[in-house]
Formats: sequence, structure tokens, C-alpha cells
Amino acid sequence: MSELRRDPITDSWVIIAPDRAARPLDFPIANARPSAQATCPFCAGREHETPPEIASIRDAKGWRVRVVPNKFPALRREGTTGGGVEGLLESAAAVGAHEVIIEGPEHVLSLTGLPKERIPEILATWKSRLLDLKRDSRLAFGLLFKNVGERAGASLEHVHSQLIAAPVVPVRVRAELERCVHHHRETGRCLLCDLIAQERKDGARMVAETARFIVLAPWASKAPFETHILPKGHASHFEATDDAGIAELAEALRTTLIRIERALDGPAYNVLVCGAPLNAPASDSYHWRLEIIPRVAGVAGFEWATGFFINTVAPETAAARLRDLPV
Amino acid sequence: MSELRRDPITDSWVIIAPDRAARPLDFPIANARPSAQATCPFCAGREHETPPEIASIRDAKGWRVRVVPNKFPALRREGTTGGGVEGLLESAAAVGAHEVIIEGPEHVLSLTGLPKERIPEILATWKSRLLDLKRDSRLAFGLLFKNVGERAGASLEHVHSQLIAAPVVPVRVRAELERCVHHHRETGRCLLCDLIAQERKDGARMVAETARFIVLAPWASKAPFETHILPKGHASHFEATDDAGIAELAEALRTTLIRIERALDGPAYNVLVCGAPLNAPASDSYHWRLEIIPRVAGVAGFEWATGFFINTVAPETAAARLRDLPV
Repeated sequence: MSELRRDPITDSWVIIAPDRAARPLDFPIANARPSAQATCPFCAGREHETPPEIASIRDAKGWRVRVVPNKFPALRREGTTGGGVEGLLESAAAVGAHEVIIEGPEHVLSLTGLPKERIPEILATWKSRLLDLKRDSRLAFGLLFKNVGERAGASLEHVHSQLIAAPVVPVRVRAELERCVHHHRETGRCLLCDLIAQERKDGARMVAETARFIVLAPWASKAPFETHILPKGHASHFEATDDAGIAELAEALRTTLIRIERALDGPAYNVLVCGAPLNAPASDSYHWRLEIIPRVAGVAGFEWATGFFINTVAPETAAARLRDLPV
Repeated sequence: MSELRRDPITDSWVIIAPDRAARPLDFPIANARPSAQATCPFCAGREHETPPEIASIRDAKGWRVRVVPNKFPALRREGTTGGGVEGLLESAAAVGAHEVIIEGPEHVLSLTGLPKERIPEILATWKSRLLDLKRDSRLAFGLLFKNVGERAGASLEHVHSQLIAAPVVPVRVRAELERCVHHHRETGRCLLCDLIAQERKDGARMVAETARFIVLAPWASKAPFETHILPKGHASHFEATDDAGIAELAEALRTTLIRIERALDGPAYNVLVCGAPLNAPASDSYHWRLEIIPRVAGVAGFEWATGFFINTVAPETAAARLRDLPV
């Protein structure tokens, strides 16, 4: 059973989840196995190895996308223990959700290994899961993310994403929301709308642009080749994107991942869908974004302690390289 | 030449350091080489491969500790470019320091591989370097840290620590300082003095105790077997520790590392010396600590995006295991 604990010094929450220690790993430290396909619980034919499906997309030939609860969840929707405060030590009921979106029946490692026409329905599934969890009033915050490759924190190779929803908004996200509210109060405008306008005008960090989205290497990139995709029109929640937007985003994500995989020779990476809290109404001040973080550099002691990252590739260099790559 | 950039969304600073991309790595991704001793620039006999010494401890037989500038520095003390603001994009002069403390002439991987009588002079070197950098009024913040093993961000195996000093206090550290000031204003006491009293009384997360220090697994540990060493008496800066305290801390650190290395079979780890800013006077509200972070789990997408860590080992479990191990 998990427990949420607040750090009395930093105010950050931590999920203590002893049950997750039992999960299988495709990536032993020795990297001995080239592929884990032979035992992969996400491959077609091994559906009985996952918990019962929450949702799926199927046709006569079988499933194309399955959503299941994480078998080793960080947080669960039921059976939580209550929180409490004892002196300086505070815990909270560890209610939440931890779902896995299995993005195809075939054992490929990255979204770019799937037929392009199937990516939109994967992103539509991300959206529908977020919309479903929004209805649970106990959940304040949700993050849709992908861990691809061992260096990005994946425990299984098979193409998948995850969704964690928690009863508290992380302190770092709260601080970001507050900065956006502050900018909106001062200027009457959204901080990211302003930033997008400045980046489009400058151009040095732009990677690509579609009708509704821009792809850029952010000014203060924490990681080499960090790349963000943002809607040009103001929107606080990814899950409010309409079908045409989902299709366009899917293609922008696919082509950007292809560029990054070519530039860095198939790196481990994370994808993060950063939006306003699940339980917040549409906001004039916050603007969602999708982040792609190639994990070619580790998180060393300095970064761990301070959150102050050292990045050896200037975003202007990364953007120029990504722009020039054919897709 | 490095550049400091502020993230307009999160307010965090990032060091863009293209020169560091050229540094050699003992740890190729394939992990092909068992040891890098044959070419190690930190071993005795290869002193000419490092930049000129800043400080050293020697006797008739040669050096035991050397301090050199990092050959591939994230920040430098001289020759920086000025900062500026253009719209939402802010940069700052990348003045700073990035030093390497080579902790012995022999190619060992961890402090625990050195004779115990030599550890105090290593910690005394940490102290003297921090005291020296304090005299540079441009430097606001300094962090002494160790990266041990590839998963902890080390690029070289040979036992060493690093010191990075920067002209700005990281936003995460600033937030922690503010929380401590707030607690002191509300209660008249130091937050960590209160926490230490509570932890000693509770006992469940205590690992060891000496005359002046306690060793504990923190309530909201972010990583399995995360362990902190704190002075029992109030002190805001590590570098103010007297010689007897340095000797006692050195032995507490050595025995704690031995316990962690036995419990986890020689894990990669970071050591972080977290104190009040270099340029701050002694403070009644902030209390320094030394953190040991075993890096058995990676930083996956959820943690990267939110700072909200998932830890599969309860600190009470880790503390009990560490307490029971012989040293």
C-alpha cells in the first residue's frame, strides 16, 4: 500500500510505494538481453498477464490500443489509508490512479515504429483517459508521460505510455501555475502566448510549425535536444484539444521524434504532457505543452540537489540540427 | 563559453555549457571497459593531464589530495559574457567556479576504499575550498558534491568530488531557505533542529548517532536508502565546522557509506553537502546537512516533470536494514 508524504524541508510530496519494488524489469543492469519480446506482458497473446482492461480500441482483427491499470501502481483509486500529521511529519491518503496505455500489439520500442495512421488514436486515448479521471473529484493533478528506454526510466521496452493522477498538485507545478497567474495579472496576457510570439519572431530556436502547433527548443533547455510542442492558440488543458488538433499534434509529435531519433541515434527519451491541473477549470493564464526530453545525459549530483541543470548543447544548435534533418 | 539562462516558465536557471560536451567518459553506454585505470587523468603520474593545481595536501612521498579546476567547466571565474534580458528571455553572466577535488592518488572508486585516517583531510579540503570561494563576492551559492558511478552522473571512476559555485541561488534552494525562515519566524526555532528532535524521539528512521551528528533516513526520502547526516547542534554552513567536527563527520560518512554499499551491493551514489548560500551570514533558521542518494532507481518522466518522486523502499525499512549492518 502506498503512502504520500510531504517533505518538511522542501514542501515536495513523495510517493512511498513498496509494492512497486516487485515489478519486472526488461533492463537488467548488465544489459544482457537484447530484447525482452519473448516474455513481454504487453505483446498480443499475453493479455492475461495484465490487469483487466479499462479501455481499448479494437476491430475485427483485434486490439490496437489497450489501457490497463499499472500492475505495480504508485497510487490506486481504492483501498487507501488516510493521512495525518504528527509534529513536522505529514502524510496524505494515497488515492490516485496509475494506468498504462499499451500503444500497439506489436513489440516496437518507440511511437515512430508504428504506422503513422495509428498515432492519432493513441493520443485520442490519452485525451479520453484524462477526461475520464477528471470526473473523480479526489484527483487534483494528472500527468500523461512516456518513459522510452532504460535511461528514461522505462522498466518495459514495449511501446507504451502511463498516466499518474494524484490528490495533490506537485509543488513545482504549483509554482509554475503561480508564475503564469502573475504574468496574466500584470499584462492581461498568457505567459506562453507571449513566449510563443517572441520565439516565432526570433526563429533561432524554432524547429517546425504547423497550422496549430509550434515545435521549438526552449530557451533554457535542461537537456540536450529538449524539444517542446505547443498549441499556437491559447489552451490550458491538452484534453480539451479537438479531433483535428489531436490528428495534427500526432503528426507533429511523430515527425519531431523521428528527427530526434535521427539526430541522437535512437536515444532514450521521455514525453511529458504538461497541462493545468485535472481539477482546474479552463484557465486564461496557463498554456499546456508537450515536452520531449532526450535522456542522453544523466541527472548528476548538482542537478539532483539544486534543480539547476547543466546542458552541453545550446538549444539554438539543437534547433538548427533538427530543422535541417529530413523526416 | 557557458551561459546562464533563466527559464521563463519555471524561474529555474540552467547552465548552457557547450564546452563540457568534449569531456572524456569512463563509462561508454555499452559498459565495455571494466576499468579506466590505464588512462585515468586523476591517477598518480598523470598530474600533467589536469589543469594546474589550486591546492593540495602533500608530504615527502607525494600528494594525497589535489584540487584542480574542472578541465571542462560548467562555470568559470574569468572571461564570462555579460547577461541581459530580451523580452521574456533572460541570461546572466556565467561567472562561477567548477573545481575537482581528487581524493587520493590511487584508482579507487569510493571514499570507503581509502584508509580511514585520510578521510578527515578530504573533508577539510572541502571546507577550505568553500571558505576560499566565499571571498569572491560574485559567488552566491556553492555546492560540494560527489558523483560516484555512471548512474550517479560520474564521467570518471577515480575517487573525487566537485564544487560548483554560481552567481545565483537555485530557485529550489531559495524556496527551502524561505520555508526555514518562515518556521523560525512562527516558532522562534530552526525547522531542522525541531525535526532532529522529533526523529531522535521517534527512532524509526534513525540509522546512527555520534556525539555531534545524527544519521537518518528522511521521512520523505526521494530515493531508496536515501540517508542524511546532520549536525545535532545548530549550524547553517558546513564550512563553519571545526576540526573535531570534521573528523567526526568523516567517520560518520565513511561508516554510513560502508553500510549503504553493503546493503545495496556497491550502488552508484551522490553525496551532497547542502548548506546556506556561500554569501549568506550564519543563519538561525537554516541548518546544513549532508545527503547520500543511492542511485538504484532512475529519474523517470513523472519525477522529471513534477519533482514528485516515487520511492519503492520506505525509509523505515531502509533505516532498520542500515542500523543492523555491521561496519
